[in-house]
Amino acid sequence: MPSFVHLYILSPLPLFLTKHFIKLPTLNPLFSPLNLHNFHPNYNYLHSKFVIKMGSDGNDSLSLDSIRKTLIGLEDTIVYSLIERSKLPLNSLAYQSSPFPGGFHGSLMEFLVKGTESVQAQGGRYQSPEEVPFFPDNLPPPFVHRPVNCWQGLPPAAASVNVSKNIWDFYVNQFLPLLAAKGDDGNYALSVASDLACLQVISRRIHFGKYVAEVKFRNETEAYTAAIRAKDKNTLMNLLTDSKVEAMVMQRVAKKATVFGQEVTLNATSNSNNYKVDPSLVSRLYNEWVIPLTKDIEVEYLLRRLD
Amino acid sequence: MPSFVHLYILSPLPLFLTKHFIKLPTLNPLFSPLNLHNFHPNYNYLHSKFVIKMGSDGNDSLSLDSIRKTLIGLEDTIVYSLIERSKLPLNSLAYQSSPFPGGFHGSLMEFLVKGTESVQAQGGRYQSPEEVPFFPDNLPPPFVHRPVNCWQGLPPAAASVNVSKNIWDFYVNQFLPLLAAKGDDGNYALSVASDLACLQVISRRIHFGKYVAEVKFRNETEAYTAAIRAKDKNTLMNLLTDSKVEAMVMQRVAKKATVFGQEVTLNATSNSNNYKVDPSLVSRLYNEWVIPLTKDIEVEYLLRRLD
Repeated sequence: MPSFVHLYILSPLPLFLTKHFIKLPTLNPLFSPLNLHNFHPNYNYLHSKFVIKMGSDGNDSLSLDSIRKTLIGLEDTIVYSLIERSKLPLNSLAYQSSPFPGGFHGSLMEFLVKGTESVQAQGGRYQSPEEVPFFPDNLPPPFVHRPVNCWQGLPPAAASVNVSKNIWDFYVNQFLPLLAAKGDDGNYALSVASDLACLQVISRRIHFGKYVAEVKFRNETEAYTAAIRAKDKNTLMNLLTDSKVEAMVMQRVAKKATVFGQEVTLNATSNSNNYKVDPSLVSRLYNEWVIPLTKDIEVEYLLRRLD
Repeated sequence: MPSFVHLYILSPLPLFLTKHFIKLPTLNPLFSPLNLHNFHPNYNYLHSKFVIKMGSDGNDSLSLDSIRKTLIGLEDTIVYSLIERSKLPLNSLAYQSSPFPGGFHGSLMEFLVKGTESVQAQGGRYQSPEEVPFFPDNLPPPFVHRPVNCWQGLPPAAASVNVSKNIWDFYVNQFLPLLAAKGDDGNYALSVASDLACLQVISRRIHFGKYVAEVKFRNETEAYTAAIRAKDKNTLMNLLTDSKVEAMVMQRVAKKATVFGQEVTLNATSNSNNYKVDPSLVSRLYNEWVIPLTKDIEVEYLLRRLD
């Protein structure tokens, strides 16, 4: 296990401070804004020490090495989740828009993702720079608040930088038909749960670009500052591109698909080329979408870095 | 991809039939029973052909071989999900009960799982024998209905057989502290999302025991019928136990943990013993909980088989 940055928040907190961490949970309607004018000072989650780390794979400082370690860990998660989704057929009905009685208009996928995000947001998700909801509008506020220290010193501008819409669009319209075989088995909710796992980890990977950009900025502040002041996107893109690393990443994720996607039997580990998800498709995911969108995030973040 | 059993439901359906498949979706409160007296005959999901398969890993008939194939596929999913949860610390606050303002009393985990299940149920989960919610009370009804054919001829008694409470209890109280390292990083909602992935696939694996029992019953109807009529649990347990297969399963899941839980780098695949989840813990999960609970499901199912 990596070591964590231990940033304890003294407990019990003075009462005036609790307002910043504790909000009333609500069991009210999923998709409507909620009344959160009351606070609940006795809430259990308050009486805790928080140990903050960056992202789910926790590293102990904001360095390019520690960030790369996290990104490499997320590659595993991405490959696992793609393998899971590829077990199910496309189930395309889940992605077609339809008016729902009750007022909601959208696809079953939109309904399920929006609903799940609302529940998770109440439980404290979407408060760190790498966690971005796909449906931020009318998201109920959290009742478990993470201390701002999980921002690792990133400026507030980081919050407004996101490419969630692009991630959703490429995943549903371009990538998913390549990943899942044609067919319909009626397992719509299961398919979408699997899609959400894919989307959330891909989004986390891409939005980690904010940390990447911050570290690169700190390492070459002068060069980046000049390009930012000139609003020179091309120069920024050149500064932050490392083609050698990108090629390595694409090779590595393909290799992970061969290792994690093989049939494991007791007698032998299969050496056939019958992997659960096509390794070249995982490479392509990174080449066409994950890496370019990460760089978009980095550029957008940098352009607001000096605000 | 396995081939599917194609059971087409003719479309468009006669209007009187639509009542069995289509119910009003609802965006109403998560945890309260919903008014579902209205139907919406024009709902898009109606105009589809359904292709039914059994479970998420689809096999084309109810045979012991096809079921074993599905169970083996679920082993992979279980190992992936355990690896993911083990990346996060225990975050024990998420599992402690607390009164929530608004009336809910329980842990953050209970709140998040109950909320997520409510959303997923509306989207059509929990309608097949192997999909059992952890919080069935007041679950909103689905607005996407799966045809009953996904029951593969299992008698209705199969619906009432479940060990969800036992799964929840062993997972939260006994297994999770072995899986996750001590610590608290504030990532509660992420931890619980990861727990839910583990719980759902473990539950699916265990409740697949209903199909296993049904096939065993069909293959040795006479012997099983006698034991069922005598309500002789011991004989039933002996009839359905295959120790050799059980030992093989435990070995295989441990091997999967070594293969899927290794560090994959471009130069070499690590041969160290530093796996992301302890292979012996995965064996133990099967030995102490998954296999015994599956057999409990099989016995309970059989006892109601002739009702």
